[in-house]
Amino acid sequence: MVFTFDWDRTARTGTAEAVLCEGKEPSDIEAICADAAGRAMFLTRLTPEMLAALAAPLRERLDYEPLSRTAILGTPPAPSGPAAAIVAAGTADRGTALEAARTLQFSGRNHKMIIDVGVAGLWRLTARLDEIERAPVVIVVAGMEGAIFSVLAGLIAAPIIAVPTSNGYGVAEGGKAALSSALASCAPGITTVNIDNGFGAACAAIRILRARQATA
Amino acid sequence: MVFTFDWDRTARTGTAEAVLCEGKEPSDIEAICADAAGRAMFLTRLTPEMLAALAAPLRERLDYEPLSRTAILGTPPAPSGPAAAIVAAGTADRGTALEAARTLQFSGRNHKMIIDVGVAGLWRLTARLDEIERAPVVIVVAGMEGAIFSVLAGLIAAPIIAVPTSNGYGVAEGGKAALSSALASCAPGITTVNIDNGFGAACAAIRILRARQATA
Amino acid sequence: MVFTFDWDRTARTGTAEAVLCEGKEPSDIEAICADAAGRAMFLTRLTPEMLAALAAPLRERLDYEPLSRTAILGTPPAPSGPAAAIVAAGTADRGTALEAARTLQFSGRNHKMIIDVGVAGLWRLTARLDEIERAPVVIVVAGMEGAIFSVLAGLIAAPIIAVPTSNGYGVAEGGKAALSSALASCAPGITTVNIDNGFGAACAAIRILRARQATA
Amino acid sequence: MVFTFDWDRTARTGTAEAVLCEGKEPSDIEAICADAAGRAMFLTRLTPEMLAALAAPLRERLDYEPLSRTAILGTPPAPSGPAAAIVAAGTADRGTALEAARTLQFSGRNHKMIIDVGVAGLWRLTARLDEIERAPVVIVVAGMEGAIFSVLAGLIAAPIIAVPTSNGYGVAEGGKAALSSALASCAPGITTVNIDNGFGAACAAIRILRARQATA
Amino acid sequence: MVFTFDWDRTARTGTAEAVLCEGKEPSDIEAICADAAGRAMFLTRLTPEMLAALAAPLRERLDYEPLSRTAILGTPPAPSGPAAAIVAAGTADRGTALEAARTLQFSGRNHKMIIDVGVAGLWRLTARLDEIERAPVVIVVAGMEGAIFSVLAGLIAAPIIAVPTSNGYGVAEGGKAALSSALASCAPGITTVNIDNGFGAACAAIRILRARQATA
Amino acid sequence: MVFTFDWDRTARTGTAEAVLCEGKEPSDIEAICADAAGRAMFLTRLTPEMLAALAAPLRERLDYEPLSRTAILGTPPAPSGPAAAIVAAGTADRGTALEAARTLQFSGRNHKMIIDVGVAGLWRLTARLDEIERAPVVIVVAGMEGAIFSVLAGLIAAPIIAVPTSNGYGVAEGGKAALSSALASCAPGITTVNIDNGFGAACAAIRILRARQATA
Amino acid sequence: MVFTFDWDRTARTGTAEAVLCEGKEPSDIEAICADAAGRAMFLTRLTPEMLAALAAPLRERLDYEPLSRTAILGTPPAPSGPAAAIVAAGTADRGTALEAARTLQFSGRNHKMIIDVGVAGLWRLTARLDEIERAPVVIVVAGMEGAIFSVLAGLIAAPIIAVPTSNGYGVAEGGKAALSSALASCAPGITTVNIDNGFGAACAAIRILRARQATA
Amino acid sequence: MVFTFDWDRTARTGTAEAVLCEGKEPSDIEAICADAAGRAMFLTRLTPEMLAALAAPLRERLDYEPLSRTAILGTPPAPSGPAAAIVAAGTADRGTALEAARTLQFSGRNHKMIIDVGVAGLWRLTARLDEIERAPVVIVVAGMEGAIFSVLAGLIAAPIIAVPTSNGYGVAEGGKAALSSALASCAPGITTVNIDNGFGAACAAIRILRARQATA
Repeated sequence: MVFTFDWDRTARTGTAEAVLCEGKEPSDIEAICADAAGRAMFLTRLTPEMLAALAAPLRERLDYEPLSRTAILGTPPAPSGPAAAIVAAGTADRGTALEAARTLQFSGRNHKMIIDVGVAGLWRLTARLDEIERAPVVIVVAGMEGAIFSVLAGLIAAPIIAVPTSNGYGVAEGGKAALSSALASCAPGITTVNIDNGFGAACAAIRILRARQATA
Repeated sequence: MVFTFDWDRTARTGTAEAVLCEGKEPSDIEAICADAAGRAMFLTRLTPEMLAALAAPLRERLDYEPLSRTAILGTPPAPSGPAAAIVAAGTADRGTALEAARTLQFSGRNHKMIIDVGVAGLWRLTARLDEIERAPVVIVVAGMEGAIFSVLAGLIAAPIIAVPTSNGYGVAEGGKAALSSALASCAPGITTVNIDNGFGAACAAIRILRARQATA
Repeated sequence: MVFTFDWDRTARTGTAEAVLCEGKEPSDIEAICADAAGRAMFLTRLTPEMLAALAAPLRERLDYEPLSRTAILGTPPAPSGPAAAIVAAGTADRGTALEAARTLQFSGRNHKMIIDVGVAGLWRLTARLDEIERAPVVIVVAGMEGAIFSVLAGLIAAPIIAVPTSNGYGVAEGGKAALSSALASCAPGITTVNIDNGFGAACAAIRILRARQATA
Repeated sequence: MVFTFDWDRTARTGTAEAVLCEGKEPSDIEAICADAAGRAMFLTRLTPEMLAALAAPLRERLDYEPLSRTAILGTPPAPSGPAAAIVAAGTADRGTALEAARTLQFSGRNHKMIIDVGVAGLWRLTARLDEIERAPVVIVVAGMEGAIFSVLAGLIAAPIIAVPTSNGYGVAEGGKAALSSALASCAPGITTVNIDNGFGAACAAIRILRARQATA
Repeated sequence: MVFTFDWDRTARTGTAEAVLCEGKEPSDIEAICADAAGRAMFLTRLTPEMLAALAAPLRERLDYEPLSRTAILGTPPAPSGPAAAIVAAGTADRGTALEAARTLQFSGRNHKMIIDVGVAGLWRLTARLDEIERAPVVIVVAGMEGAIFSVLAGLIAAPIIAVPTSNGYGVAEGGKAALSSALASCAPGITTVNIDNGFGAACAAIRILRARQATA
Repeated sequence: MVFTFDWDRTARTGTAEAVLCEGKEPSDIEAICADAAGRAMFLTRLTPEMLAALAAPLRERLDYEPLSRTAILGTPPAPSGPAAAIVAAGTADRGTALEAARTLQFSGRNHKMIIDVGVAGLWRLTARLDEIERAPVVIVVAGMEGAIFSVLAGLIAAPIIAVPTSNGYGVAEGGKAALSSALASCAPGITTVNIDNGFGAACAAIRILRARQATA
Repeated sequence: MVFTFDWDRTARTGTAEAVLCEGKEPSDIEAICADAAGRAMFLTRLTPEMLAALAAPLRERLDYEPLSRTAILGTPPAPSGPAAAIVAAGTADRGTALEAARTLQFSGRNHKMIIDVGVAGLWRLTARLDEIERAPVVIVVAGMEGAIFSVLAGLIAAPIIAVPTSNGYGVAEGGKAALSSALASCAPGITTVNIDNGFGAACAAIRILRARQATA
Repeated sequence: MVFTFDWDRTARTGTAEAVLCEGKEPSDIEAICADAAGRAMFLTRLTPEMLAALAAPLRERLDYEPLSRTAILGTPPAPSGPAAAIVAAGTADRGTALEAARTLQFSGRNHKMIIDVGVAGLWRLTARLDEIERAPVVIVVAGMEGAIFSVLAGLIAAPIIAVPTSNGYGVAEGGKAALSSALASCAPGITTVNIDNGFGAACAAIRILRARQATA
């Protein structure tokens, strides 16, 4: 079985050469990585169990980060440019926030991480507003009811990419409540990506950062 | 057809003698009002069309408020006790907020109304926090994503009753997004009632106000 | 990674210093508990597996209750004031009922627990109505179709906080049926919290009990 | 276009020769009634607008009941046998209850109607329990949260057929909440039919009454 | 903790003294069985894992059937009366069908089981129609799209209780598709119970069988 | 505003030059028809209200069929080839069945229509099986619970295209129940199209008929 | 009743002073416009019926566009800067596309509109790719299955904001299908806004255009 | 317990003698295979765990393919006729694609497999269009947002059978997003089967191939 990997996509769309590992066999991942032939490669949704099932030579070459379940193969470019802000409402949202951070890192972008600023204690967020506001693009990660998306969008002017997470239980379980909050927000100008999709949020941020560079 | 109205409920549960007009025929409403035999009566979800269909003698005795679609028959007790706060995020939530206000009025309770304080402009809410905080119970009415429920619950200590409204479109349509926000809130201690149920929220507030009086 | 815990919340909102353990790493819980620096702390949704993964010195200091999956670190205040009633429809709802009870206990509140009074045998509930009615606030915990919420709200005047649980199968699975019953009840004045959220119900009860004390 | 009406169904299954008018053209209804050639015929979901659109000769021969939106063409058999009980929780459920009653009437069965016995005032139901209990089969009609299904099933031994109605708003809108309550009931032995399906409930009751007769 | 078991329910409603084991602790089940004090008892949704966790003296006294996950404690009455038919569309529906069969057995009722008669091979069903038609009540168990409910209801006159099962995948997963088919059937007079609820279907059948006996 | 109509599609995919009128302005439809410049054109979902709003010269040139809400502009090819079967379960499904028939007619295909053969009276379907079986492709149109899809697929070998319709109420409302039945069928080899999509079913049938011709 | 309009929001977040008219009374809109005191103002979701209900002096000062249901009060700034692209899949998506265009116009931004380029005729889209690709930000508007979001995101590098629309029927009705396609896309870097929310998409585009300017 | 296997179905409907193993016990599968008495048999959804639980003599006679979870017992006919195309959007869709391929193989049909041609890299699909277009029927397998269904249907004229898969997360989880895309496609003439139902898609393809042969 021959893979048809889309190596050209980076040039065409500016997004990372990434492999979604979920749903793939270990042998699939090994074949794709072999096909990479020295190019840097980004693996997402790689669980520790899948990592352990990979052939040792590949596994040892991977830079794996367990909370985000991401791995980097090869050497990404050194980070440059202004730092995108990644704001996470709660501790449990860190895995998704890190997936975004790792995607930016793999793509040679800087970022700053601001965690545990959920609106239940509003001062935590307002205390760091200056820091957030200076970023050219802001990724906001939150589960449960996702109220932070609206609050932040009412306070700053930068592009905001919401990442609802599946953290929570009852009606929040699976992330639908947070997703609906991002979409139905009373504060205009929020955009959103799929639940738990830190990778996609970072790709969108990179599109925005590239558009900025095109101007400068 | 003989109605079995539950005239005893006020004594038993402290909630209003109310009639949900939706789904009833004009002749049903007329029969119930006749059965009231001089008792004060509260009608909810009475549209202007239904009002117009009622027999003139009854219609003329009703104190009708069109935005809340409520009517009062007879004379409710003079208001007394501390004022419950009713906080509405947007102008479009006013109908539901007024339904709560009218229910309190019918039950002899005071209230104060605070409108247009949605979190997209956070200063509007924080500017009135002192006023809200002094109330023994706070009813919060919001549609769309309902972020105000969490923000307010993180700022004050009073009992909070959320009333999600069906205002909004797309994923907010019908009020499910706001309802999920109230239920899945990261700020502990919020309770909620059904979508657009200003009457039920006021009944819950009355239960709390009664419990307070029992103590004093 | 530095946590931004909201130690001030108790003073501000009267709710407990609680940590939702679900979605957090053992090291997160350890760091938060260390940060507590002697303050009492309440842990919710702490599974036996997560407990076992905590460092021994912390684990041994925790007062853990397995059915409610809660742990108390440090010494909560001695209970005082009138006892909130916790009514649970079935044996399987006990875990959630205990989560509410433990939250009250941690916050220095008294409670009484009434279990196995589901409406399939109505006499079980009516036999204990006097006992329930004397409480200043009633938490009602039920899964399946949650009919008890309406029955009880039609019989007593106290504030009622419904806690739908995820007990049941088929259309009841996940707690949506019981949640809808609480929200759509024909008996006015019921408020509800998220599915399985015994902690949130107790926080709401505490808000009500505080409001009572403010009066007295 | 020739219709393929199933005139044989009554003999085969004991249910009525009924026509669901919803979704049909006036000319369809006229054609089917002509095809009946003197047989008695039962029309359901016939709105006043559809009735008005029928040709006058047919319209004048119909015994139309507007609340249930049913019409009878021809002369049904005189009612005989024990009376099935139809219990309706609220006034707004009467239309569906009447659809069941008219179906029984068309099929030559007796019935008794018990209305406005919702559980918010439990005494209204218990006061009439003896009357209900004597029926060989009980149809229970309720919207909103449908708590009455469970309460009644815990109190009597007769076969119970629940008919959830679409009365209610918010999460009750459309009847899903009441339907889930019937299906997820903690009281064993309830069966249910589709939302607002008074006709189907009566057909099921007729199957049970026939099975009884087969024995006697 | 004292249980409030409803021993009186059999006399009152004619349904079995049954314990839903799902969601209960082994110690709960042991306590209830001890409380039974010699009465026969029926346990449902008792998984092999839960059975193994019970104390040996109790476990050894249980008559356990693994496919239906039911256990009988003590000696049920000898079966008498006409046999209810249990019709199962597919092999995978047998567990639920057996739950119904065991409930009938525990309650002293006869039954006959007809399996693997799904409508994909219509002749399998029509070949056994005579046998089915002679039963005073018919329980039909089916997952996937549940077409058999409508087909059978169009062919026989007996009371039909549909039991949708969670067998199937994709849109059938969880049993919603089969449940909707039972409720929305074009064949009048079908009633339904919750997904996988063989116990409830048998309880409804017993109500019908009792009503028959009352006549004779 | 210039339209970008895809006139080339017929050659490329063999499906009709059709315009979905729903959501378009009368001026849009007029502009597209003008752009057609003499080509035959098929209009779907054209309500009588929209038809009346069209400019008279265009309106008068349209061959309009109200039940299917379709219009043909210009002269379609004379029908040739074997007749596709269109089987409709109920009278109310005729509009959708006619939409399929008109699409076939516009595309120069023959069809035969078999109506009112729902499974509640199974003999109606089996009586016409020979006729159905001779067709090279069968379109089956049904609302409510859609049991006919499975029954027919178990009886014949031809390609079957299910068209669920939105006919029905309660859980059937909107067509989801019938759609799920088509998808979850226990009879292998059914394919389905969107709810009420008679046009799409006919386009799929045409693809199959073309594939047949390619062989001959 | 005094409104609390957030006039400061433009300075703070760069989004327009807009009023969502849906759910508001004519008198509300008049009061807000009076409060504007000469500032330019943007009205969204203003139906022709609501427009007609406004007082004549206000109505005559409004620049109303019926397809987008938007009105501009006062004189917006002259457009400047690079043109955002607005790509609409079908004719029926034009209303939402125009809402985005009018929002950009009100905010002094240029735009170019590309319509009728749905993927069913792929060449329509690829023919205009150069034109689209030159825009600094691309708003893509599509209903039904929304496949264009993925196709375009795989072809260009600019930031993409998807606007799912409620155009379509059956499973597409309401816009959920298109929304899910935007969120679940296999092409990384798409962000989305609420269904039919052309205004929100333009606000997000303005945030991106501002961020670009901040750089230059 | 005697099985009622439908051995006649192949002759009647042309689909395979297949057993859906999910939900069956190992002993069920063994009994059915014994009953086959030398006929070839096709087993679907046979997990490695279920395979391991089968009696060794049977297990060793099975030709098992783990990715598709299918097994063939006995010798299927040698493949003949034109090759159906199976197009899979991503690597993770291969299991379902192989289920379709194995079904065709078991039924004596040829196929060609085209993998990894998702629309995020459109050139991958267009590069292979000639190859796809030559097939008499095309099965398209895709998860996530399923955009490939529409793109391909706009490019080729052959019958298209969409198989949505459950690959994806967030709103794509479970396959509903891909299923909706297939059903709501703007490209006419797509039909679809249940999520992950490669077997059903192949059975539908066989129906089409048979219809072709009938002509030739």
